[in-house]
Amino acid sequence: MTVEESLVRTAVATWKSNIDRANKLFSGVSDAHLQQEVAPGKNRLIYLWGHLIAVHDAMLPLLGIGPRRYADLDAAFLEGADRAIDVVFTRDELKARWDNTNGALQEAFDRFTAADWTARHTVVSEADFAANPLRNRLSVLLSRAAHVSYHLGQAALAPK
Amino acid sequence: MTVEESLVRTAVATWKSNIDRANKLFSGVSDAHLQQEVAPGKNRLIYLWGHLIAVHDAMLPLLGIGPRRYADLDAAFLEGADRAIDVVFTRDELKARWDNTNGALQEAFDRFTAADWTARHTVVSEADFAANPLRNRLSVLLSRAAHVSYHLGQAALAPK
Repeated sequence: MTVEESLVRTAVATWKSNIDRANKLFSGVSDAHLQQEVAPGKNRLIYLWGHLIAVHDAMLPLLGIGPRRYADLDAAFLEGADRAIDVVFTRDELKARWDNTNGALQEAFDRFTAADWTARHTVVSEADFAANPLRNRLSVLLSRAAHVSYHLGQAALAPK
Repeated sequence: MTVEESLVRTAVATWKSNIDRANKLFSGVSDAHLQQEVAPGKNRLIYLWGHLIAVHDAMLPLLGIGPRRYADLDAAFLEGADRAIDVVFTRDELKARWDNTNGALQEAFDRFTAADWTARHTVVSEADFAANPLRNRLSVLLSRAAHVSYHLGQAALAPK
């Protein structure tokens, strides 16, 4: 394994372990329990889960993998605060979308080369990327890994 | 910049941005406010901060940078739950340790080469590392980045 491959495979493995932890937390939760707030007056578990699905779905175009599939989540889970809009998604619907989204990401991550990871993501222009070559796909992966961990820490506080 | 350098510099830059966010949250907190629980019956801010300092301090030997400096934090912040032991550290003492620890890590990270990052960390044996070469320094950096984000998400819930 080359140094490049080792770096890239380590980053993808750490991403996957973060996703596995989130899987374990959210996938075992019932519809009723998804209504639980992580702390009094704070976001509900269903909001955090839907939010993560919407953010990960948006990684598909951002990383040049494909179009978004679940932009219908944005109104309830991305653009507004929890409870600003009535959520009509069930646990099973969210679980299917969560699995599909992370599966599509993982499939692409497993074939991305080191050069793919250091290429620019689709929201930065060629000129801006030339000025700051760290605005690459890997930076998206690592910042989204921090994002899922941030909300996972909150979700872990919800009463059991 | 080579692909290797780009990968490594991206990972270090993302680490630094996570630390900067934690800085912003913890460094502005008073001694009195550090006693605040992040949610009723959950860890206090002072515990999360001390815990992060102890974990980051332990990265120094783990990554072959140097010996631990603040193992005296472990009893209160690593081995036991919050409040199991009376904490005698002030905000200023924790702030100095936080800055020193992250500064020593950053100084090393800025000089680590790609080959340094893919080398084994000090807790894995040579035989185990041969079997799983992803147990390298980068995996420590990325898992600790997830760890700081996890607790930062919790700390952000504390009443202001």
